[in-house]
Amino acid sequence: MEIMLEEIPGFLQSRDKFYILTHQYPDGDTLGSACALAIALQKIGKKVKVLCNDKIPPKYDMLFEGVMSQNFEPECIVSVDVADVQLLGSKLEKFATKIELSIDHHASNKKFAMYQYTEPGSAATAEIIYNILKIMKIEIDIPLATCIYTGISTDTGCFRYANATPRSYRIAADMLEKGVDACKINRIMFDMKSRERLEIERKVLDSMEFFYDNKCAIIHVTQEMMQKANATDSDVEGLASIPRQIEGVLVGVTIREKKDGSFKISVRTDEEINASLICEKFEGGGHLCAAGCSMTGSLQEIKESIVDAIKDFILD
Amino acid sequence: MEIMLEEIPGFLQSRDKFYILTHQYPDGDTLGSACALAIALQKIGKKVKVLCNDKIPPKYDMLFEGVMSQNFEPECIVSVDVADVQLLGSKLEKFATKIELSIDHHASNKKFAMYQYTEPGSAATAEIIYNILKIMKIEIDIPLATCIYTGISTDTGCFRYANATPRSYRIAADMLEKGVDACKINRIMFDMKSRERLEIERKVLDSMEFFYDNKCAIIHVTQEMMQKANATDSDVEGLASIPRQIEGVLVGVTIREKKDGSFKISVRTDEEINASLICEKFEGGGHLCAAGCSMTGSLQEIKESIVDAIKDFILD
Repeated sequence: MEIMLEEIPGFLQSRDKFYILTHQYPDGDTLGSACALAIALQKIGKKVKVLCNDKIPPKYDMLFEGVMSQNFEPECIVSVDVADVQLLGSKLEKFATKIELSIDHHASNKKFAMYQYTEPGSAATAEIIYNILKIMKIEIDIPLATCIYTGISTDTGCFRYANATPRSYRIAADMLEKGVDACKINRIMFDMKSRERLEIERKVLDSMEFFYDNKCAIIHVTQEMMQKANATDSDVEGLASIPRQIEGVLVGVTIREKKDGSFKISVRTDEEINASLICEKFEGGGHLCAAGCSMTGSLQEIKESIVDAIKDFILD
Repeated sequence: MEIMLEEIPGFLQSRDKFYILTHQYPDGDTLGSACALAIALQKIGKKVKVLCNDKIPPKYDMLFEGVMSQNFEPECIVSVDVADVQLLGSKLEKFATKIELSIDHHASNKKFAMYQYTEPGSAATAEIIYNILKIMKIEIDIPLATCIYTGISTDTGCFRYANATPRSYRIAADMLEKGVDACKINRIMFDMKSRERLEIERKVLDSMEFFYDNKCAIIHVTQEMMQKANATDSDVEGLASIPRQIEGVLVGVTIREKKDGSFKISVRTDEEINASLICEKFEGGGHLCAAGCSMTGSLQEIKESIVDAIKDFILD
């Protein structure tokens, strides 16, 4: 059943031992939200443990600075920023039917918990956690502020995406006043690159080809390129935004070979061109400016098919 | 003489025909501030013209959408975001001794105007303009909000740098409420790359070498590389931040060949290593984490000298 924001503090206060679940392939919002909630609950004398399917990437270590590591049997299981129990990952799926409270900002939330609070207008789940802490009158110190700021900043691409609202900025301002080192957080979250990421980026830039008077740019990433760069899946995240960033490019395409030899195609377009319609030609879909599809065949064949499919859109 | 913020509206209201000067190599803050002030003054019936030494790069066109183009003889000359008359550039230097009001946020401001308002705590001059508009009770519409948001966002690196204050975030929040398309602005200001920039970045990444157990990374840009990429000086801006962004790198060095064949060295370091002390070895200097020097010789000799100079700092 749905629960109101104002009911969450009472819910939390009436229980004592919490597991807080995050989603797999964790990001700054699921971890920032979980750690913020954990720190807050610790402050009012509760036992709390943050769980994640995956090993936490070192860049998120700072979020855990205020979180105590304890072992105990949980009395209550809460999930944060988890839109669907399938996103818990194999290690946490045993909790799927036992989640008592789910706090999330995804409109697509599957409402799997006994009590569900979903706020799709929120840029980050961390914004919801901030509002809960305010109602609970919990003092926000630097470790808490670090978690909340990180959640908001990472989910809005450092205030770049359209999901950032005035409230996102205002909460961030409050966190700065609590002493958060926003500059350091953003450097770690956005500016740092692994050697492997650098290598694969270099190779991907080398693969770039232009079509239709430079209005279409295509890059590719093969398993061989990834192996040579010693890159993992997390190193190739976000590459799909590269071709569209080039001045004059209206359609940016990224062709990524998967482990099974098939290809995942990501199409990013200017508002004038419908990415979703391009991908529908290959039984894919998505949004106006960002869509995708899967294809099989040789890289060259796939590239030719896509270039051909784009023709009508770009020459209109 | 110094003037107080509260005196600026009266100053502006008592004059009718304004030239607003910006600094050369214009950025989002000098242009955003100038255009915001121009739009505001137009709203209260003044004649205004924004001047810049350089051709305005197309990405700033949107700032000028609310600015009328008029020809007239000025009654009053105002400069915004100009720290020193030398930064006006050759085309505007004739106004250097005639500036009646200077509005700026650089602590290094040379106080060249008859009336001077400098607020070094302000992340951007656009924040000062916003405060002036508030006192003047000028309604902020989308064109005005676009100018103010752009000034703040560009001067804080999209809220990434340490200069962004709670006020910066809160004014940005206000501008979002006025209907500004922050997502579009930030995409244009931060994500767009020219083909030439892409080319030179690719070449620069290929030049990267690592030393001292990958704790030092060095890149170089030669005139030949720039010619091959068809790149201008503006295309190589910001390259110096690349080597330090790699995980584990404590000292990032960029060696850039100038047109006269000499080299400009930029050193970026982690807080543990003093970049300024490294550059002092070559009669340069700077700050703790960012410093520079000039050197002559062959690229290879220079690289060897720098690698050698860094040794003591990195192996400590």
